[in-house]
Amino acid sequence: MSLLVVGTVAFDAIETPFGKTDKIVGGAATYAGLAASYFTNKINLVSVVGDDFPKETIKLFHEKNINTEGLQIKNGEKTFFWSGKYHNDMNTRDTLVTDLNVLSAFDPIVPDSAQDCEFLMLGNLMPQVQKSVIERLWKRPKLIVLDTMNFWMDVAWDSLHETLAMVDVLTINDAEARQLSGEYSLVKAAQKILKLGPKYLIIKKGEHGALLFDKNQVFFAPALPLEDVFDPTGAGDTFAGGFIGHLAATNDISFDNLKRAIIFGSAMASFCVEKFGTERLINLSQDEVNERVQEFIDLVQFDIVLV
Amino acid sequence: MSLLVVGTVAFDAIETPFGKTDKIVGGAATYAGLAASYFTNKINLVSVVGDDFPKETIKLFHEKNINTEGLQIKNGEKTFFWSGKYHNDMNTRDTLVTDLNVLSAFDPIVPDSAQDCEFLMLGNLMPQVQKSVIERLWKRPKLIVLDTMNFWMDVAWDSLHETLAMVDVLTINDAEARQLSGEYSLVKAAQKILKLGPKYLIIKKGEHGALLFDKNQVFFAPALPLEDVFDPTGAGDTFAGGFIGHLAATNDISFDNLKRAIIFGSAMASFCVEKFGTERLINLSQDEVNERVQEFIDLVQFDIVLV
Repeated sequence: MSLLVVGTVAFDAIETPFGKTDKIVGGAATYAGLAASYFTNKINLVSVVGDDFPKETIKLFHEKNINTEGLQIKNGEKTFFWSGKYHNDMNTRDTLVTDLNVLSAFDPIVPDSAQDCEFLMLGNLMPQVQKSVIERLWKRPKLIVLDTMNFWMDVAWDSLHETLAMVDVLTINDAEARQLSGEYSLVKAAQKILKLGPKYLIIKKGEHGALLFDKNQVFFAPALPLEDVFDPTGAGDTFAGGFIGHLAATNDISFDNLKRAIIFGSAMASFCVEKFGTERLINLSQDEVNERVQEFIDLVQFDIVLV
Repeated sequence: MSLLVVGTVAFDAIETPFGKTDKIVGGAATYAGLAASYFTNKINLVSVVGDDFPKETIKLFHEKNINTEGLQIKNGEKTFFWSGKYHNDMNTRDTLVTDLNVLSAFDPIVPDSAQDCEFLMLGNLMPQVQKSVIERLWKRPKLIVLDTMNFWMDVAWDSLHETLAMVDVLTINDAEARQLSGEYSLVKAAQKILKLGPKYLIIKKGEHGALLFDKNQVFFAPALPLEDVFDPTGAGDTFAGGFIGHLAATNDISFDNLKRAIIFGSAMASFCVEKFGTERLINLSQDEVNERVQEFIDLVQFDIVLV
């Protein structure tokens, strides 16, 4: 089934304890699209860049079967730029620069060729913009996944809630789940958040894995213990891309398949953090992906027979 | 196989956001012994209390098949007392009172009847005291599990390392693994710590589960997402007790059985935190334990068939 990915396509400059980069290509839709491309070859991108954005990256999107008809290129304008510096623990970072540039007036236009999408990934953006995408689709997709962040809880509480009411899966981290619900217990937080609209909630806990909740069930997905986390930028978007990519490829939105999708998303995220930016996501082989997924299987496997 | 549990038997006074207790019975060996009693009925306790310690608790130990011949009762002296207050997140706490009392001169004496133990649980104590227990055993047990804490890394680095060199399994939390190894990455920390002596390292991550490492493998055990953590006191000791209790009952120290043991330990710990002190560990039925273990199985179960 075809997948529509909406989100930022951007430049990032990243500093970690392992080194720093010049401007490199990043953005939620970039990471999500690349991750999804390992699972499905019907991907449409809706985003915006300036005329400073490299043609080679657009060519790369095409090689990965990511249709860029919905990628607006604004002449005489600059691509969204973010710069950040990670602390030694890699779990916290300081934003150094946020130049919205073309993003400040982003009006997402879904091309007719992408209107038939059955799976919609709404990467982190202003909630009002995310909502407008849903409203502009001729037909509601089978599954809408929304990513957001604490910033929108601080400055756009009401429109975030309006948007949340329209989606099927929300992905946020544990601190955001606590902020959104006002509950410290993630179990209680999940039950409150599921009353806001989403049928499923994924709480991303970084190195501690992820939790998937619906009203009656919970699934705990591990994170792969890694020797080094080189650069966490984009890990959450990569996770989301692998997740929805698997769902779109299998066209199965059962809880059991959502669990599988979380493992695939986690596997993709574990690649993402091994190098700066999108580098590790560009040339993976199917064997590498399968071996990594097998590591996740082995990591949590145990056999207990209760008598 | 018979199990020897060495550690504190104590009074605790606990304050959490949910309430506070007067002096209640606690201590590492109390929690570990009670948890182990759900798996094996050959348990020996080595510890020390004052004559203020309640006879009913000693009776309870006997009911749980915990032999107290090695529990020294010091006339005219007082039982070790600890008091602490948990913060709202339940992950951090302040120690309000530590009265060592009988513990300050604790000389662990292993009764002849406990000398045949094949499994030894050394609860958190001064490393020199833990070491003396190993030295006093006529025959080295099949498996020695050691629990310790950051305090001993601060004040008894050398004797902690001497003790570590003599044990098979070390259980510590993630912050302690980082302190002991000087490595932030838990994978790197584990490999360094395994060079200090232990064949296996268990890193306890509280609500985030636990990791089991040997030189070549890693296992990620989930924690059960709970609505409320009422009182985390003793959870780590309860985990250790369930862990070694299962190993002693099955007399199997393969990596696969260590994985099962971690799940049983995690299940016991998930009960422990549901009420103050040891309350929840006293009257569990086998059905309750099995149901809880089944929840852990369901929590992480997924089926991916790689092609």
